[in-house]
Parts: sequence; structure tokens; C-alpha cells
Amino acid sequence: VNERQIIQYLSERAGGADSRILQSIGDDCAVIDQGGGRVLLLTMDTLIEGVHFDCALHPPRLLGRKVVSVNISDIGAMGSRPHALLLSLGLPPSFDEQWFRCFADGLTDACRDYGCRLIGGDTVASPQGINCSVTVLGEMEMDRVVYRSGAQPGDTIWVSGPLGFAAAGLELLRLGVGQDEDWAAPLIRRHLDPMARVELGGQLAESGLVHAMIDLSDGLATDLAHLCHQSKTGALIRGHDLPGLSRLIEAGRYVPGDPFQWAVAGGEDFELLFTAAATVSEEILAVGQRCNLEPVAIGTITTGSAVRLVQPLADGAVREVDITYQGYDHFRDKSGS
Amino acid sequence: VNERQIIQYLSERAGGADSRILQSIGDDCAVIDQGGGRVLLLTMDTLIEGVHFDCALHPPRLLGRKVVSVNISDIGAMGSRPHALLLSLGLPPSFDEQWFRCFADGLTDACRDYGCRLIGGDTVASPQGINCSVTVLGEMEMDRVVYRSGAQPGDTIWVSGPLGFAAAGLELLRLGVGQDEDWAAPLIRRHLDPMARVELGGQLAESGLVHAMIDLSDGLATDLAHLCHQSKTGALIRGHDLPGLSRLIEAGRYVPGDPFQWAVAGGEDFELLFTAAATVSEEILAVGQRCNLEPVAIGTITTGSAVRLVQPLADGAVREVDITYQGYDHFRDKSGS
Repeated sequence: VNERQIIQYLSERAGGADSRILQSIGDDCAVIDQGGGRVLLLTMDTLIEGVHFDCALHPPRLLGRKVVSVNISDIGAMGSRPHALLLSLGLPPSFDEQWFRCFADGLTDACRDYGCRLIGGDTVASPQGINCSVTVLGEMEMDRVVYRSGAQPGDTIWVSGPLGFAAAGLELLRLGVGQDEDWAAPLIRRHLDPMARVELGGQLAESGLVHAMIDLSDGLATDLAHLCHQSKTGALIRGHDLPGLSRLIEAGRYVPGDPFQWAVAGGEDFELLFTAAATVSEEILAVGQRCNLEPVAIGTITTGSAVRLVQPLADGAVREVDITYQGYDHFRDKSGS
Repeated sequence: VNERQIIQYLSERAGGADSRILQSIGDDCAVIDQGGGRVLLLTMDTLIEGVHFDCALHPPRLLGRKVVSVNISDIGAMGSRPHALLLSLGLPPSFDEQWFRCFADGLTDACRDYGCRLIGGDTVASPQGINCSVTVLGEMEMDRVVYRSGAQPGDTIWVSGPLGFAAAGLELLRLGVGQDEDWAAPLIRRHLDPMARVELGGQLAESGLVHAMIDLSDGLATDLAHLCHQSKTGALIRGHDLPGLSRLIEAGRYVPGDPFQWAVAGGEDFELLFTAAATVSEEILAVGQRCNLEPVAIGTITTGSAVRLVQPLADGAVREVDITYQGYDHFRDKSGS
């Protein structure tokens, strides 16, 4: 049983038709028709100690920021902005009060940065370690929502920034490399304190240029496969165009790890991946510039269903590999894949 | 640091005024103005293995139902009905597939029973044990919402059903008593599969009779203290009127445990506690009857701030004790109280 099978099982039993629920399980957010041409967006994500973070490596203030950012990233991936946030926090009975204060400060600071407000939730005892669930609420115009399902063959595939930094950064932290190393700092920072690209997502949605969008939480291979599955398309990625690769290759000189693997399968970068007609590239770049970002075109939506990567080899040759769903699976151990 | 202090710390940093957020941290649900005289209600609760449930005692199908009921109870306590639900489920990598299917079936069955739909969430690996966060969304007329803060001195305090059954039932399960014992079955059932009194909550809100309402998740002493704190009142409870006490006394003959302690401090009954003018008792009973419930008047809202209990003693005498916040605290170990 892997994560997709769990979600599939729940999804099949989720209940009958409800004309106001425009999107249920299967996209970055659920979408509910609020009338008057407006929709409500809802997303929920959990971070668990020992799985998503290591308290020995993660300063509590940055962890507080991260639990907000990873959820708001889902709101941005639909083209919306966050309005309100609920927090359910599980703490061991012996939790450190100073740790909690820093965590809470980071969390509420991040809410302020993103323009949303903490409005509720609960706190529970969690003897085996900290866990933190967050729900974020957004709103937007119904006809501007960008789903995963709208990609069309021939579309250009864009990402909003470098891939694989968070995975490499986590590896560096585990090996004891610090942020004082110039080559390491941006990678480590991406793991500790990723930014949700919510302003870009909102402006892309408003521009009407974008056909499909998803945030990169489980890695390019898996998240692009989700988007392609929903859109009934395939994709071809040009490996040499993946942004940030040169920095990953540099890091690979100091520590063990495959730069391509980081870029293709590493999760938690929280960049946006989106598709648009090949004719609007200039406009996409202009939207990016207004958000102080440089989106990069990394491939093309195709017919079929496979997500393939053209990978440059050391001898100048290339090979094409199928990377469909080869990214992070929360139940990898179980599925045995 | 106890739970109230944690919530207080977060609440103070939750962000500036937002005129659309009618209720933030501090009630059963957050309340957001949706325009047109309608509000959105949101609540979030987490159940953690080893704290809120024991897999050896809790059949997975009933646990799936319970995670829905405990959240919908909060929606009912504002006078609303549930519309949609998000689930964030943490499972150990080696989780049992049959267990998951039963849990998911119970959860989705309960959604159907309560008339709401599972619309999203996520699944994560949780090596140290199962945890389950749920967010529920409801909607209603703005001017019918019943907050914790509306109680008035002289109000009659009502509960929708027996108190202490869930706490006693858990004790029985731990001692190996089964549901085949007639005296034990209703207690055990209340722990395993509590019902959210959402129909009663909705009808009470629509009746306009009720001044304040809360659901009994942390026990009478603590939840009534929350309501009194928000309403700037005190309360006096008549111990001999607590519903279900005779059955708790019967259980106390078979197993160790203080029936009064179960009734006053035991959490998780998920009955509603509400207050209304003493003049409308007949109308309250009529609303209860329409919902097949028998609300019981257990005391009076007073001036001051203390929650007191008049307890009958064995010799026919009575004593008055202060029970303010003497119920369940999720961080009891830490606060040392």
C-alpha cells in the first residue's frame, strides 16, 4: 500500500455529489463554491518530528515558519492567497517552554508575513514527539482557480526556482555542514525555511496565462506525475535545464549524493510547477519579474502518460529515462518500491 | 505551562484585527463573516494513539467514527451543521492494511451519517504511532451563532445527556470489562463511539432560546469554567442532579473509581452544555424531545467567576466545593496541578 492507494481508498468513499464542492481530494486544495463567483480553498498538512523535521537540526523559530509555508504553498498553487490558519499542535508533556515560545513566534511571524491570521485549532499531548497539523483557508474568484488538470500537450512546463535544494540541504545538515559555507547556505536555508511562492501563484492565476499548476512538495518526478495524471497527459523534461543543478553538482563534490537525484526526486522545495502555451513565455517571465523570481522552462507537456527525463551523460551523449512517480512517497518502506 | 497558557501565548500573537473574523481562538469554532448574513465555522482537533485512544481497545471502525464525531461536536456547539471535512492521517510505515480499511470505512460512514463530505487532507508517515487531525467546516446564519460568551447570571445550566460515561467506560475497558455486561455497555459505548449532538445544537440555535453553549470534551468542570470565563460569570452545579450518576455509582461497585470524579472531571462525553433563561425550560425540553434527547437542568449561572459544586454527602449533608478547571488538562503532567 502506498500513499496514492490510501488516498484512492478514502477518495472512493468520500461521499456523493455535492454541486458546491468544485474540487475534492486530488488537488493542492479543496475548492468550495461560495456563491457570487467566489470560491473558498482549504488545505491541510501535517509535519511530524523524526519524519519531516529533526529538532536537533531545525531551529524552532524556523520550524514554526515552515509549518505555515508548506501549507500556504498549497494555497498559492491554486492561485489564491491565504486568509486564515488553524493549528493543531501535539507536544510531549515534558516539552521545553523556550522551544515552544520560539516555535510559536516563528509561526505567528510567518502568518503575518503571508497576510493571514491564526484563528483556531487545538493543543494535545503527544508523548512520542512533536506533531503539527495546519489548515489554511483562502478565497478567490471562481474563474481564476488553476487546477492540476488543465495541462495540454504542447504546453511549456515551468518551475519558479531551483529544484533539489531542500533535499541536498537536509543531507548537508545531517553531515554536519553549516550555513557558514557559502556553497551550502542556500541549500540548507531551503530545507529549514522554504518560502511559499504565493504571490507568484496569485499573479499567474490573475494573468489567465496558466493552464495547470502544482507545488513541488514531493519532488519533480512525483508532483509532475500527479499533474499529468490529472491532465491525462505525459511530460518530457530536459535535465540540463533544471534550475540550480550547477549548485547541486558543486555540493556533490563535498558530500555524497547524486545531484540529479536531488533535483528530480527530492521533495520540499515548495517551488511552483505550472504549464502554459509555448506562445506566452515572455508574459510568464514578466509576471515572474514582478514577483522577483525567474521562472525557468524545463520541458513540454506531451501526449501519453509517462513523465520522462532527457538526461545529459558525462560523455556528451543523452539518455531518456522514465521518472513517473519516482519522487518521495510517504510510505516508501511499505510499498517496497 | 498548561494548555490554557499555551493557547494564551498563541492567541496574543495571532495577528491584528480583521473585521471578517467574528470569533478567533477561544470558542468551539472560529467564525468568519461570509457576507449576506452568513458565517463560516471552522474547527480542528487531533487524536493521538496512546493519548486519546488505545488500538488494543478501540476497534478501528469505531475510531474512524470517533475522529469525525469529536470534531462535529464542536460545530454543533456553535449551533451549526457540518458541511465538509479534511483529514490528515499519520500512519506508521508498517501499518496494518485491514486496520486502515476499517478505520476509513468508519470515518466515511460517520461523514455520511452527519451529512458532511470528506474533501481533502493528507497522509503522512508517523513512525511512533497513529495520529489523526481533522478539520470540519460548517455554515449558518450569522445572527443564530451561539458563543461561549453569552451566559447571564440567573440562567439555567443544561446538559444534553449523561456525564462521566466516557471516562468510566475507558476505565472499564482498561480493566477488561466488556460490553456484554448490561451495566457497562452504555459507558463503554460512549468512550468508543460518542455521538455529536449536532441536531440538538442546530435546533437550539434556531430556537433563539440559548444564551451560551459549549461541548463537553474536557469534562464539566473545565468546559463550564471556559464558558464562565468567556461570559464573565460563575456557576453553581447541583451534584445530585447530574444525569447518569446512578449508573456511574453502579459501575463504581464493580471497579475502582469515584463516580463524582467521573461525572465532574471526566472528558469526552461530547454532550452539549448550554444556558438559557429560567423561564424557557419547557421550550428547551420540547426542542430536546424533537431530537430524541432529554436535556437536564444541573445548575445556575451566578455572578463571580468560580464554578462550584454542591455535593451530597453520604450522611445526607451537603458540601460546596470549587471545581473551576478541575477537569482534563492535556498537559497535566507539566502543570503539576
